[in-house]
Amino acid sequence: MSQSHLAEIDGLIIDLDGTVFHGSRLIEGAAETIARLTAFGKRIVYLSNRGNLSRREVCDRLNGLGVPAVPEQIVMSSTVTAGFMRRTYPGSPVWALGEQGLRDELEEAGVPLADRPEQADWLIVTLHESLTYRELNDAFRAVRGGARIIATNSDKTVPDASGAAAIDVAGMIGALTGAAGRLPDLVVGKPSWLMAEAALAALGGGVERGRCLVIGDSMESDIALGRLFGMKTALVLTGSTTREMAGVGKHKPDYVWESIADAVM
Amino acid sequence: MSQSHLAEIDGLIIDLDGTVFHGSRLIEGAAETIARLTAFGKRIVYLSNRGNLSRREVCDRLNGLGVPAVPEQIVMSSTVTAGFMRRTYPGSPVWALGEQGLRDELEEAGVPLADRPEQADWLIVTLHESLTYRELNDAFRAVRGGARIIATNSDKTVPDASGAAAIDVAGMIGALTGAAGRLPDLVVGKPSWLMAEAALAALGGGVERGRCLVIGDSMESDIALGRLFGMKTALVLTGSTTREMAGVGKHKPDYVWESIADAVM
Repeated sequence: MSQSHLAEIDGLIIDLDGTVFHGSRLIEGAAETIARLTAFGKRIVYLSNRGNLSRREVCDRLNGLGVPAVPEQIVMSSTVTAGFMRRTYPGSPVWALGEQGLRDELEEAGVPLADRPEQADWLIVTLHESLTYRELNDAFRAVRGGARIIATNSDKTVPDASGAAAIDVAGMIGALTGAAGRLPDLVVGKPSWLMAEAALAALGGGVERGRCLVIGDSMESDIALGRLFGMKTALVLTGSTTREMAGVGKHKPDYVWESIADAVM
Repeated sequence: MSQSHLAEIDGLIIDLDGTVFHGSRLIEGAAETIARLTAFGKRIVYLSNRGNLSRREVCDRLNGLGVPAVPEQIVMSSTVTAGFMRRTYPGSPVWALGEQGLRDELEEAGVPLADRPEQADWLIVTLHESLTYRELNDAFRAVRGGARIIATNSDKTVPDASGAAAIDVAGMIGALTGAAGRLPDLVVGKPSWLMAEAALAALGGGVERGRCLVIGDSMESDIALGRLFGMKTALVLTGSTTREMAGVGKHKPDYVWESIADAVM
């Protein structure tokens, strides 16, 4: 991105998986690029559809990879789900199908966790990479008991540690939909208004949408979110999308980059 | 409901199908009861998960059945969906799978309708009782072209003109989920916060939640909405729920009535 184009940007909303890192491996040039953007005075938030991790875990991972970050810069779908529940249904007990990161975000937001599945008003579903039948069945019991389903995201697959496609939240939802006959009432993840509002809030009040750039590897979540909310968009080819796929969708990105390193030329 | 209990209520949020009427037939005593509640100075709004009808159509039906009403008292899931789209995604073109009532509400709210399915950012799905394969396939084309799905409600069945269970919005969604592999991002209908907020807004600013009574025939939508938002609740047995079912759910109603006529003793 040329200096003159970069001058039109105040805030960067950066995806994580496939954009900054693959699992525990940093994408080449990401740390230096983010350091330079920070030095230029750009505000940066990381916006991820991952609902199974807490901000704290992701912050530790970024710092471990040489990317300085604080939890306030990190917005996960788990974070946004927890904030939505606290504001919209205060005091309603929830049951969580997912990893500890989701429970951490819910507890930090003060969302009460039900003691038993049947007591829950809401079932929150996210990725659970060590899922057991018993946990899946507890979620089913919550739904049978009247809980409505909220999903942190509805991605179909997620890259596993080896990079292969692994079953994501859509699979967990499919199990519940098949068994209990109930659809989620809300999918929180990108490109939703909830994620866009949370990212803008994390950037700080003064940043205009039109002076934000969304950087990510997904046409459906990252580029769509940017286009829907009047932000500029850059697709990176380090994740799930090829250059050919970038030309097909409804929401065309403003930029197509080999990697996030192209953000600063 | 005794006069002393009624004195604690300022606003009534009344379901329509199964509570006030069955199709084109008024439920016995409904018109007189509503007239008395109005005479007592209670504010009344009608809140329905129906997304295929406009406020205007429902208002005409109520008036035709001898229940005086104005469109401002009527909140359908089509109304709430249209308002949500206007506020949250202004200018984003939508494709509508459903009857004219949905399109009327979208147009009145200034939500732009796409000329072709592939141009839509959003597909709104509601009940369509004269659905054709071509219309279903147009909706599929919208989703294949990248539109995200918003459902006015996710009821599985709806009574047809003869009172028999007929396929409702969950069936339309099932067709799209099966063919396109995409879930709805949002289900607007009761007991959502969107419906609760719209009902309270229609009642007028000054009415407190704790002084509202929700009257309806569905544990899952009417009673759940009231309980989730701190309102009082009355289940009527003129619709889809029996007295036995009323004792089973998580959200128990404050009152169980043979019909809406029990609102005024």
